[in-house]
Amino acid sequence: MTFCAPTHCTPVPLAKAYRLLNHGPVVLVSSAHGDTCNVMAAAWSMPLDFDPPKVTVVIDKATLTRQLVEASGVFALNIPCAAMAAQTLAVGTDSAHTVPGKLAQHGITTFAASQIAAPLVQGCVGWLECRVLPEPHNQNQYDLFIADVVAAWADGRVFSQDRWHFDAAPDALRSLHYVAGGQFYATGKSMQVALDPAPTATE
Amino acid sequence: MTFCAPTHCTPVPLAKAYRLLNHGPVVLVSSAHGDTCNVMAAAWSMPLDFDPPKVTVVIDKATLTRQLVEASGVFALNIPCAAMAAQTLAVGTDSAHTVPGKLAQHGITTFAASQIAAPLVQGCVGWLECRVLPEPHNQNQYDLFIADVVAAWADGRVFSQDRWHFDAAPDALRSLHYVAGGQFYATGKSMQVALDPAPTATE
Repeated sequence: MTFCAPTHCTPVPLAKAYRLLNHGPVVLVSSAHGDTCNVMAAAWSMPLDFDPPKVTVVIDKATLTRQLVEASGVFALNIPCAAMAAQTLAVGTDSAHTVPGKLAQHGITTFAASQIAAPLVQGCVGWLECRVLPEPHNQNQYDLFIADVVAAWADGRVFSQDRWHFDAAPDALRSLHYVAGGQFYATGKSMQVALDPAPTATE
Repeated sequence: MTFCAPTHCTPVPLAKAYRLLNHGPVVLVSSAHGDTCNVMAAAWSMPLDFDPPKVTVVIDKATLTRQLVEASGVFALNIPCAAMAAQTLAVGTDSAHTVPGKLAQHGITTFAASQIAAPLVQGCVGWLECRVLPEPHNQNQYDLFIADVVAAWADGRVFSQDRWHFDAAPDALRSLHYVAGGQFYATGKSMQVALDPAPTATE
């Protein structure tokens, strides 16, 4: 497949790719090897370096995603929006080992990435294409994967000029932060703070 | 110093400590060694395990915090609230190397932790006391620190029965998510999602 960006999908400069994840949203990890692809939710991911950008994400040994990532050496982090909360919970709960048709069952559709063989998830508002930096100790001991970001994309309705702009878009396009048991928080109100050399204490 | 919790500071069971960080808030990393203590902001931290709980956080080599953490083997992750956004930006911008009085200058006050020698930051809404698991390769290569969580606390006005309850409290007590350049997002509206075996696709 060749890369054909869906409507609203615009490139993000690699040096600014960390900003897609910097605010701590839940992500969907997409992966593929051979004819098998999968998508799972992950609350535990974060940027690890600015430029060239790196990310880290926890991928449990029990998941099909783990097998696909170890076999292919690539994955994508997709940032779902509030409209996808139910799908995010569903693909984070059902395992492809026991629910082999989980993507179709939960209405997850994908499109081809630009640099990696793993697909990207339709309807998300940010996408980071990643190549694993092999770190066997971290993978085995902590389920922790470190990767280079090799391409990044965002929905231009909520991310432009290297910044999120959630307040100017429908709430359904806000990113999500996961707590537990099906509870999410939407990314809330933007606060622009200026450096003040001597603010007063808050308590 | 002995531990004397400030008003509203209540214990969080260790097995639920990950929930303080699961939604990806910005944190303040507090550390101490000898007579020196420091506080810096960090957007790059996340849970690494449930029970016993572990966390991981990126601490740059250029920071005084890095020296204090490597010397003492402990740190705390403090979760600032929206009322502390300006202080969070300030202690994330000023280095104690060049602004040695930065805590006093920015009105940061601390109280003793229960299990570690590093202090906790007053006015925050969550606190995780952490002991470093030495991982020299991760520390040197990626500035990545892995630690056991040995005690956890939260402001009972916004965290109780193992859950955040931001919607029922003043907005000033919401946690924060950092983007860049002084821009934060407050943690937004809670969304409770039920598992649906076959939702329709969102696009």
